[in-house]
Amino acid sequence: MALIVHKYGGTSMGSTDRIKNVATRVAKWHDAGHKIVVVPSAMSGETNRLIGLAKEIMAQPDPRELDMIASTGEQVSVGLLAMALLAIGKDAVSYTGWQVGIRTDSAFTKARIQSIDDTRVRADLDAGKIVIITGFQGVDEQGNISTLGRGGSDTSAVAIAAALKADECLIFTDVDGVYTTDPRVVDEARRLEKITFEEMLELASLGSKVLQTRSVEFAGNYQMPTRVLSSLTDPHMPLEEEANSGTLISFEEETNMEQAVISGIAFTRDEAKITVIGVPDKPGVAYHILGPVSDANIEVDMIIQNQSVDGKTDFTFTVSRNDYQRAMAVLEAQREELGYIRIVGDAKVSKVSAVGVGMRSHVGVASQMFRTLAEEGINIMMISTSEIKISVLIDEKYMELAVRALHKAFDLEKA
Amino acid sequence: MALIVHKYGGTSMGSTDRIKNVATRVAKWHDAGHKIVVVPSAMSGETNRLIGLAKEIMAQPDPRELDMIASTGEQVSVGLLAMALLAIGKDAVSYTGWQVGIRTDSAFTKARIQSIDDTRVRADLDAGKIVIITGFQGVDEQGNISTLGRGGSDTSAVAIAAALKADECLIFTDVDGVYTTDPRVVDEARRLEKITFEEMLELASLGSKVLQTRSVEFAGNYQMPTRVLSSLTDPHMPLEEEANSGTLISFEEETNMEQAVISGIAFTRDEAKITVIGVPDKPGVAYHILGPVSDANIEVDMIIQNQSVDGKTDFTFTVSRNDYQRAMAVLEAQREELGYIRIVGDAKVSKVSAVGVGMRSHVGVASQMFRTLAEEGINIMMISTSEIKISVLIDEKYMELAVRALHKAFDLEKA
Repeated sequence: MALIVHKYGGTSMGSTDRIKNVATRVAKWHDAGHKIVVVPSAMSGETNRLIGLAKEIMAQPDPRELDMIASTGEQVSVGLLAMALLAIGKDAVSYTGWQVGIRTDSAFTKARIQSIDDTRVRADLDAGKIVIITGFQGVDEQGNISTLGRGGSDTSAVAIAAALKADECLIFTDVDGVYTTDPRVVDEARRLEKITFEEMLELASLGSKVLQTRSVEFAGNYQMPTRVLSSLTDPHMPLEEEANSGTLISFEEETNMEQAVISGIAFTRDEAKITVIGVPDKPGVAYHILGPVSDANIEVDMIIQNQSVDGKTDFTFTVSRNDYQRAMAVLEAQREELGYIRIVGDAKVSKVSAVGVGMRSHVGVASQMFRTLAEEGINIMMISTSEIKISVLIDEKYMELAVRALHKAFDLEKA
Repeated sequence: MALIVHKYGGTSMGSTDRIKNVATRVAKWHDAGHKIVVVPSAMSGETNRLIGLAKEIMAQPDPRELDMIASTGEQVSVGLLAMALLAIGKDAVSYTGWQVGIRTDSAFTKARIQSIDDTRVRADLDAGKIVIITGFQGVDEQGNISTLGRGGSDTSAVAIAAALKADECLIFTDVDGVYTTDPRVVDEARRLEKITFEEMLELASLGSKVLQTRSVEFAGNYQMPTRVLSSLTDPHMPLEEEANSGTLISFEEETNMEQAVISGIAFTRDEAKITVIGVPDKPGVAYHILGPVSDANIEVDMIIQNQSVDGKTDFTFTVSRNDYQRAMAVLEAQREELGYIRIVGDAKVSKVSAVGVGMRSHVGVASQMFRTLAEEGINIMMISTSEIKISVLIDEKYMELAVRALHKAFDLEKA
């Protein structure tokens, strides 16, 4: 008998029939003797509908009032799921974030969880109830409703699991786990049974949609075993089978021992590259170039500053393709202040990354990656590395080719 | 400078454009120097949508969970209205019932307000803010969300006005006040500038849709001057004119002094009459007949027990026409226990009522009413009276004729 937190995404909660399916699955786990807490997202489309209403009234919605509105989607979900469980004879009760003391800071629309009071939930679990808690939201010290930002229900689920010292947090979603790379690009892509927390964190920040970065951070901080698995399977599937499906984000040391050098190949297609040519090379150049870009709320990813020649240097960075035109305009406007010769840009570039904790103990991963790409005739524009990740920027037309070649070169199709 | 509570119904809040109109109107009152609290309903259709979802999952929705869901409609409304005010440069803040301590009992879906903590609202009003509070809902002692039942936002508005000792509560709705009778039936129907609390209470319980009965009771208990007025007028109309429009439910004694004998003619079309013939006249006969009807959740209105003849009596009562077939079936099933001879029913009857506090001090109102109906050849089937009301049951085909004749007989077209 274990204490387990289930999280279900918006697609899983997308209709009353699907909510009944979720109830069937949850009841199966409860019937097996486990204490179950469920954190459902809003019904798919609902959060967008609510934000759309807000934007019709205020182009830049007031953050506190937006949270007041956006938090209602999850409130409807928990009530409906509680009813679906009651309807099949299970004792269930729903709570909002404020009702179970999910305290956050006051950074509305992107609040961070500070503490959770587990008293009420524990009492209900001890009484045999299934407890359903709104994801995505909490309450600040002044009693204002706050939300955690998009994908925040993942974070809520892991945080609630940590507060309750749950045995495992199950993130039910519309994919059946974490893959060595996107199966739509590489046929041989393979589901990973386990992945380390650090690898998952890199994959999340590299654009994998499987889990929100902050939820992975939470799992890491609290060493909460977290499993990503499918909610599209038959809800009556045997529990033992389901309990071992998907991908487990693991904190056990032996996991690392048998770890392959590389766990997966990640990529983001829609990148853009901007180079500021002939900018005077003096202290603060990076700040003077990137400050205005950041002020325009544009996130910068890879950054390179060339070796200085004759007191001038070239400065290159990447942004999301959506922000390319805006970033160019910001820099054009700063021409005088920055004193550069010209700006050149390329909005048809992609980023490919190899991720794996095995890199720490294996030399030569970078050189194998560069050799593989060279053999395919793919030019590398930029490189960035971390302890367990190497990313390269390449022409977007070679992206699929690069991913397939690297997947094969690192033997990722083999278990 | 006064403290005024505005309440806006679902139609007034029915779209983002209409919400902007509400904001314009509210801002006008605030600009005039008043402290303003606004209680908006859910956007029209939203509460029905939410209850519909619940019923798809559970035919008889769990009341606590239904309130969790149904309360979100108003939460969205307050956030949107706050934004609409912020967007036009007014300082505004929204709160849910629990955030401003609207404490209710735990009778989910039909909870009653017990207390309101005005601390937070007063502080905001003193700081010049417009305060927007969800109608329809509160929180019980255990922190569960409760709702007040259909039309509960009227009650919330009056209760909040009472707690804040407001100068007036304005109920903005899609009619422009209380009329001497339904203008769709009588062309000469006239809007009443003032009406006494007792008259309004009778009209509400006689089926007038203008105000929920409980909100009128609240207004009475706290002597809260409450005005019903239109939200369909130009929001820029001069404030002085708007402040005197609609109908004021008044508690001033002089109002009664200049009161006409009768203030209005109310009617309900869809009544049905059931007579149990030849039931043994012994103690408890009314209880034995009406007990099973009440157990079937059927509300009984008028009741008559005939003079007993030879130890047998006839017992007649009215129900809403919707409940007619069910009530007949309940009594058929009780034939043996009740020992009656037969049941007869008539589902084509209507009720017409004359209401007015002037009745107290004027004799002969009943006889004038009966004479007027007799002159039109209308037979009276049943009569019931209260201190300020006389109701008669008549054949439904004479209903409009009766209303017009009485409206004229009591000079209601004259101011």
